[in-house]
Amino acid sequence: VGAAGSLRVVLISPRNPLNIGAAARAMSNFGFLDLRLVQPYTEAWREARSAVGAAAVLEAAQVCETLAEAAGDCSLVVGTASLGHRELKLPVRRLEYGARLIKKDSGAVALVFGSEKYGLSNEDLSRCHWLLRIPTRLEHESMNLGQAVAVCLYELARDARAAVRAPKGQRRASGADLDWIDALLGSALVQSGYIKDRTARSSELKLRRLIRRMDLTAADARVWLGMLRQICWKLSQTPPPA
Amino acid sequence: VGAAGSLRVVLISPRNPLNIGAAARAMSNFGFLDLRLVQPYTEAWREARSAVGAAAVLEAAQVCETLAEAAGDCSLVVGTASLGHRELKLPVRRLEYGARLIKKDSGAVALVFGSEKYGLSNEDLSRCHWLLRIPTRLEHESMNLGQAVAVCLYELARDARAAVRAPKGQRRASGADLDWIDALLGSALVQSGYIKDRTARSSELKLRRLIRRMDLTAADARVWLGMLRQICWKLSQTPPPA
Repeated sequence: VGAAGSLRVVLISPRNPLNIGAAARAMSNFGFLDLRLVQPYTEAWREARSAVGAAAVLEAAQVCETLAEAAGDCSLVVGTASLGHRELKLPVRRLEYGARLIKKDSGAVALVFGSEKYGLSNEDLSRCHWLLRIPTRLEHESMNLGQAVAVCLYELARDARAAVRAPKGQRRASGADLDWIDALLGSALVQSGYIKDRTARSSELKLRRLIRRMDLTAADARVWLGMLRQICWKLSQTPPPA
Repeated sequence: VGAAGSLRVVLISPRNPLNIGAAARAMSNFGFLDLRLVQPYTEAWREARSAVGAAAVLEAAQVCETLAEAAGDCSLVVGTASLGHRELKLPVRRLEYGARLIKKDSGAVALVFGSEKYGLSNEDLSRCHWLLRIPTRLEHESMNLGQAVAVCLYELARDARAAVRAPKGQRRASGADLDWIDALLGSALVQSGYIKDRTARSSELKLRRLIRRMDLTAADARVWLGMLRQICWKLSQTPPPA
């Protein structure tokens, strides 16, 4: 799906309105707004309290009789499944890999979730091109519907480049600022008697490393300089150590 | 966190027992079993119905008075936050990047979620080394607590290598099988009159590409060969095209 607009989230026979609302909320969080419900168990989903901030997604949701109808305009239909579905002859792809295939697809894609109780029927599975598996533990595979929707959509919205590049952070303190902090802290430690010999190379290096490990921002470095200047001034007012 | 065992999920003043149960379920799904609750609003969480399959996580959960107590054995404390927290001077890291830092950390890590209603207090934030942000839309940032826990733990459990390598799938059809299918389908099409000139190079290539695009497994190729052999046999029984 080139754009988020070409993904349809299809829930088959969902029973719990809270789950439908939670699915809608996750959709809105990650920018996927096209929800289709196949034979929802009750009408109560229309007022699901759990759809915090996602009333628009629920309002626009399409109700369908069959998956064939819900996915009629989709060129790729992907079911979500646990390993229990392995006996079906459909390829099962881990979410990390399957999401890439979905993102690369040039057409509309239906991402299909089965009912909380029964999952996807064989009839529904026969309409899927392949299955997506969230990599949960074998000991506890089955996820809550709303959480499964959230995890799948997060992976689709995920920016792989954001995983390797450092975020644009605040500006780091300059070497000159850090040197000033070294000098002032060293002075404060000598004046206070913590360091006996100011020129001892080992103390100097230890102090320098200590300060670098703080990984200060430019703004924080200025605060430290102010505090240390004040401390040094005050220390200079006291009698020298005996 | 080298192992999942060194991550603690900390929920601060959670109000809705269903959210606590959902958090426990996601933890169990992804293999993180150490839950700590700071001043939960009611005691009802102990029997949360939403903790399907995760009763053990709830039973082992620690109840604490403060975040300081809950994260007492952690060398890294990471809060979860929305962009609304930007005015705080804490670094905010996107989940894709922040999760890498957490995974690389050699010590125990606390992953802290604020209450549904108020998020993290300034007191709690002051104990965090940095903040993790789930990359939701600016128009609808705020996630459900149980879904936010699920998405964060999925990213921590995620296997980046699974995103690039194809899954161990079923064996693909061999070139020889595909050539047989080419030949049989070509024969069926000539016999049926769909192709007039069997030897036309362009039909031959079109057919070959059509078959390769099906991306058949070895098992499916055998089924196709059986079907086509039967069709060709039947076609050979009919009078030749006029």
